[in-house]
Amino acid sequence: WGWRKSLSFDLIQEWVLKNPEASICTAQGAKKFKDIAIFQDYHGLPEFRMAVANFMGKVRGNRVTFNPDRIVMSGGATGAHEDDCLLLGLIPERDFWVPVPYYPGFDRRFEMANWGTASSSTCESSTISRSREQPWKNAYEKAQKANIRVKGLIITNPSNPLGTILDRETLKSLGFHHEKNIHLVCDEIYAATVFTQPRFISIAEILEEEDVVCHRDLVHIVYSLSKDMGFPGFRVRNPCTHYNDAVSGLRRERCRVSGWVSTQTQCLIASMLSDNEFVDRFIVESAKRLEARHTKFTEGLEEQGTTCLKSNGGLFVWMDLHKHLKEQTFEAEMALWRTIINIVKLNVSPGCSFHCPQPGWFSVCFA
Amino acid sequence: WGWRKSLSFDLIQEWVLKNPEASICTAQGAKKFKDIAIFQDYHGLPEFRMAVANFMGKVRGNRVTFNPDRIVMSGGATGAHEDDCLLLGLIPERDFWVPVPYYPGFDRRFEMANWGTASSSTCESSTISRSREQPWKNAYEKAQKANIRVKGLIITNPSNPLGTILDRETLKSLGFHHEKNIHLVCDEIYAATVFTQPRFISIAEILEEEDVVCHRDLVHIVYSLSKDMGFPGFRVRNPCTHYNDAVSGLRRERCRVSGWVSTQTQCLIASMLSDNEFVDRFIVESAKRLEARHTKFTEGLEEQGTTCLKSNGGLFVWMDLHKHLKEQTFEAEMALWRTIINIVKLNVSPGCSFHCPQPGWFSVCFA
Repeated sequence: WGWRKSLSFDLIQEWVLKNPEASICTAQGAKKFKDIAIFQDYHGLPEFRMAVANFMGKVRGNRVTFNPDRIVMSGGATGAHEDDCLLLGLIPERDFWVPVPYYPGFDRRFEMANWGTASSSTCESSTISRSREQPWKNAYEKAQKANIRVKGLIITNPSNPLGTILDRETLKSLGFHHEKNIHLVCDEIYAATVFTQPRFISIAEILEEEDVVCHRDLVHIVYSLSKDMGFPGFRVRNPCTHYNDAVSGLRRERCRVSGWVSTQTQCLIASMLSDNEFVDRFIVESAKRLEARHTKFTEGLEEQGTTCLKSNGGLFVWMDLHKHLKEQTFEAEMALWRTIINIVKLNVSPGCSFHCPQPGWFSVCFA
Repeated sequence: WGWRKSLSFDLIQEWVLKNPEASICTAQGAKKFKDIAIFQDYHGLPEFRMAVANFMGKVRGNRVTFNPDRIVMSGGATGAHEDDCLLLGLIPERDFWVPVPYYPGFDRRFEMANWGTASSSTCESSTISRSREQPWKNAYEKAQKANIRVKGLIITNPSNPLGTILDRETLKSLGFHHEKNIHLVCDEIYAATVFTQPRFISIAEILEEEDVVCHRDLVHIVYSLSKDMGFPGFRVRNPCTHYNDAVSGLRRERCRVSGWVSTQTQCLIASMLSDNEFVDRFIVESAKRLEARHTKFTEGLEEQGTTCLKSNGGLFVWMDLHKHLKEQTFEAEMALWRTIINIVKLNVSPGCSFHCPQPGWFSVCFA
């Protein structure tokens, strides 16, 4: 649930067996064992950061490159987000803006208030992108009137739970926030799960465009291999920040609070992700398999009369069950959720847990 | 510096090559790759907890056993200590008692005030144990008079920086704190580095004795493989607590804040530490090599006219250079420290950074 449990592991396993020198536990790699086991630099292994930067570029179609020196590794997703906020001087409570529906983990992390944002249009239109600039502006004005200071906007692109991606115009409109000196945290944790058109556009690409009014220093990209490669157990999470001054501070903070990735795992991942031939094949094959599974899953639902929000990324779909609600309330949504969990035995999540403003939506994992 | 850099790695490397099934990156172990990579339970792999409990018992001469269900894993030392305190309801500032000299990392972790404790006797006598019960009582009374509440006592045994161990009588005297309902955090991170007599006595042994007045619920043992096995990069730190109610809370907290150990590393360590023949050999051989290196190092110093506090554990010695100070002040200590670092190019730490109450002591690593 929530990970590509068996989707592309054959490719990874095959690579591991073909590249015994990548592991410190094989005859071919064991001579590195000592150096790897005692390595303690909170910058991470240089080859690890380089390989992650390489992979992040590949996932974004090689249209942008990432500077390994700006990669800050982290052992845990939660810690990573918290540290970013600490370092950016953001106070979790009420300092953040997140479009609804959003990943419930953010609540635990920041204890964020759910207000503002381009919420209501999200479920009505096919993607959040229809809303463009105006909702942000409205939300900002609303916040100002309520004397709530907004210091950061968090975007998960591709969206969790929607599985949709933000289009170029919407991403460009985020420049609005930079006029107001608001930090933009882009969680691109599902970047490699985009399986069909339109293609994913990273905020990093937008920053390269000439006509974009954007302070690079205010943009922070959060990334991870948990979802894109399917390694949640390995704890490889690398927030990559463009906020120059924060990098060294973040590294120290991360080292202090959230530990880091086991050097044994850094070593293996470094070797795997710097193999361009493998990475190219993995990205293509993985997208192909995700698309096939998504098609099979959504077509199956449609045959049962259930539609989903049209999506092209992520490992989940946003399923519309509002017509099965006894009444259009969140109580009825919870009742339906209990029925699905207990009787249908399907592990779905109700929209209300994602702060969806309309009852009847459910998130369900297909990968 | 600070780790047994090359001391016993040949043994570990040899084991790894002889046990290819322990690694998910070998033909023999690769079939586990998927299950290990996606494993996400914050309890940790059951075999990992069992193996760590087994190893902790072995290191303590099999005189005590540890319950795997009471083992809480952590990816980082710092996070582990912080979480313990959070969960125990201890407020870092001024709530702790630590005998000086102590590991400076505790300051960063808890921002602890340096007061009370059996300090002055530490450097005058050969071990802290001479001071026994009275200093704790004096410090406690002093704290009460100053309206400072004391909720926790932290002991590092074997001591860092002293390399000495606490004797049975001293450990028993800690029962005094339990009368006052004070938590006792025993950091036994150097347990396997005791290379000569007297043997190391874990607080866990004391708890087994019939005549000890001690509330098990108030005792918490912090452990790690960073020092005892020499794997700082692998981030294997496992606080083991006897405080029953705290275990599940600690696990959740740890998962949230400090991440966990990469499952790839958990898997390898589990296999290695449950091999009793290897563990027995490793402990014996490692102690033998540490003793040889310690003897060579301290004899070399003595030939130069430098004495050290008599120690029998740890990877460092507590070196007495007070006669080389221009005057008996901490300013003179810092001046001498700079000379040693810059001219002698020996990486030592001045006693003042450990809150040593007397100038002239330096910590230096020999392993």
